[in-house]
Amino acid sequence: MTAPSPSTTPLPVGPLLAGPVWAAVDIGGTKIAGALVDSTGTLAHRVQLPTPAKESGAEVLAVVHQVLEHLAAAPDWAAVTAVGIGSAGPVDLVGGTVSPVNIPGWREFPLTAEVAAHPAVAGRPVALAGDGVAMAAAEHWRGAARGAENALCLVVSTGVGAGLVLNGAVHPGPSGNAGHLGHITVDLDGERCPCGSYGCLENIASGTAIARRALAEGWEPRGGDRSARAVAEDALAGHPVALAAFDRAAQALAAGIAATATLVDLRRVVVGGGVAAAGPVLFEPLARHLDRYAALPYVRGLDVRRAELGNDAGLIGAAALCR
Amino acid sequence: MTAPSPSTTPLPVGPLLAGPVWAAVDIGGTKIAGALVDSTGTLAHRVQLPTPAKESGAEVLAVVHQVLEHLAAAPDWAAVTAVGIGSAGPVDLVGGTVSPVNIPGWREFPLTAEVAAHPAVAGRPVALAGDGVAMAAAEHWRGAARGAENALCLVVSTGVGAGLVLNGAVHPGPSGNAGHLGHITVDLDGERCPCGSYGCLENIASGTAIARRALAEGWEPRGGDRSARAVAEDALAGHPVALAAFDRAAQALAAGIAATATLVDLRRVVVGGGVAAAGPVLFEPLARHLDRYAALPYVRGLDVRRAELGNDAGLIGAAALCR
Repeated sequence: MTAPSPSTTPLPVGPLLAGPVWAAVDIGGTKIAGALVDSTGTLAHRVQLPTPAKESGAEVLAVVHQVLEHLAAAPDWAAVTAVGIGSAGPVDLVGGTVSPVNIPGWREFPLTAEVAAHPAVAGRPVALAGDGVAMAAAEHWRGAARGAENALCLVVSTGVGAGLVLNGAVHPGPSGNAGHLGHITVDLDGERCPCGSYGCLENIASGTAIARRALAEGWEPRGGDRSARAVAEDALAGHPVALAAFDRAAQALAAGIAATATLVDLRRVVVGGGVAAAGPVLFEPLARHLDRYAALPYVRGLDVRRAELGNDAGLIGAAALCR
Repeated sequence: MTAPSPSTTPLPVGPLLAGPVWAAVDIGGTKIAGALVDSTGTLAHRVQLPTPAKESGAEVLAVVHQVLEHLAAAPDWAAVTAVGIGSAGPVDLVGGTVSPVNIPGWREFPLTAEVAAHPAVAGRPVALAGDGVAMAAAEHWRGAARGAENALCLVVSTGVGAGLVLNGAVHPGPSGNAGHLGHITVDLDGERCPCGSYGCLENIASGTAIARRALAEGWEPRGGDRSARAVAEDALAGHPVALAAFDRAAQALAAGIAATATLVDLRRVVVGGGVAAAGPVLFEPLARHLDRYAALPYVRGLDVRRAELGNDAGLIGAAALCR
C-alpha cells in the first residue's frame, strides 16, 4: 500500500515552542496523529495520517514512524525531552504493549519498545497510556477538569471511553486502562457485548448504539444517513423515536456516571466526543437521569461540564503523560 | 433508657501493648465497639455496647462516650496517639459529620468534633472514615489485601459495603465514602432502592435481598427462620430455590466487582461478611459469573480471596486510619 501524504501544518522556519517540549502521538482506529507540545499545552508541527487498520502490525508501525519522522524534522525537536503515546486500548503498561480492538494487526504489540527504538527518539523516555486516560490527562491539565482533585472525563463517540483523575492526578491504573467506563455492566441481564461481557454501557450509549436503536424502533434516515449525528438532528427537530434513542443512551450514561461517582467519590464529570456535540439532546436527559441514579448525598448534584479540548485532547493528553 | 453493662475483656493490671497505640471505635447500626490497637494490629481492652439506634443523637453519643471512657481506663491509654473511627455511612469527611442510614438520630452529626471534645481524648487527633473504607484499610494492613497495590474489599451482609485500595493506600475519597459498591446500579431498569436510585447492587445481592427473593420464589423456611443463613443452609442441601437466590446475588456481585475492576484497574478482590460465610454457595456462582462479566484482558482471572479479619476488621481498620 502507498502511504498517503501527511496532512500537516506548514513546517516553520524556526522553533515555535518555549521551555521543555514533549512529542505526542495519538493512535486511534482511523487516524494516527502527532504534534510537539510545550509546557503551556500549545501544539505545533501537527501531523495526521490514516491508520492502515486492516494491514499488518508492521504497516501500522510504519505510519507511527512516519509521524515521528515528521516531528523529528521540526526545529523544536531538539527541545523534546520525552515522547508520550495515547493509544486505543486495551493497553498493558506492565508489558508496554497495546492490543487495540480496532487494529487487529497489533496484539500485545510492543509499542513502547518499538517507539523507543526509533533512531530519532534516541534514548528519550517513552510514556504510554490508553486513550481514555490521555483524554482525562488533557482535560485535567488544560480543559474542563482543571482544578478538580477528582474527576471522570468521558468521550461519547463511536464508542465510550473515559479516564479518571484521583487525588489530583490522572489515574492510569497499573495496566493503563483505568476509567474504562464503556465496558462496565449497567444492565445485568443485557445483551452480550463484543468485549465478551453483558449489558455494557457502550453497547447502549455509544453513537453506534444510538443509531442502531433508532433504526430498530422505526426511525427512517433521510438521505440514507444512518449516523448518530443524523439521529441527533432529527431529535433536535422533535422526532420522538430519535429523542427516545438519545434518552436511552443518556439513561445508561447516567447510571454509569453515577456508579463511578459513587465508587471512587468524585463530583466533576467532563463529557466530550461526537455524540456529546449533539448538545441538549444528550445533556438534558443526562441531567434528568443523573437526578435519578446519583442519589446518595455525596453524589447528588454532580458538576457535569462539556469537554473543552475536542479532538486535540488526545495529543495534549499524550504530552501530559510526560509531565 | 438504662445503658446495659459493657461486655468486655477483663481489665489487665498493666500495659499489654507495645509501641504507638491507637484507640479504635467501630460504629454500626446494632453495636458500638472499641479497642486499643498497637502497631502490629493486636487488639486489647475491647468493649462492645448495643447501639441505641432508635434513640436521640445525644443518647447514641453517650454510648460512644462510654466506650471512650472504658478505653481511657486502660493502662495502655497513656500510649494512645490518635483516635480512629469507622462509622456506618454515609459520612462526610469535609464536615467531619456522619449520617448513618440506620441511626436516624444522627444526621450531619458532628462526630469528629464531639469525640475530639471528650476530656479523655485531650487534644489527640481524631480520624474518621466510612465502615467500608475502614474494612478495606484493615484487610490491606493485616488481612487478605496485604501486599496489593490496588484492591476492592467488600462485606456482603445485611447490606453490601466496600472500600478501595489504590496506589498502595486505602482510598477514602474526599467525602470518605469511596468504594460504596452496594449503591451502584447494575440493573438499569431495576427496582427503586431505599437509597433513591434504581437497580442497586445491594438490593439484589445483600442477605436481606437473598432471603426476600427466596421467599418470593416459594422457599419455605423451616422453623420460621427467614434469614439468609437459613437460605444458605438449604442451598447447601441442594434446594433449587435457595440455590437460585444465591446465584442471582452472585451474578449481581460479579457484575459490580467486574465494573469496579474495569473502572479503577485492580485485580485483588477480598470478600467478607455474613453472607460470604455461606462459602461455596456464594463463591462458586460468583466465580462462574465473574468469568462472564470480567471480560477485558486486564480484568480476566481476578484474584478473589476471602476476608481474613472477620468482625475485627472494623476495629483494626479504624486504627489503620491513624497510621
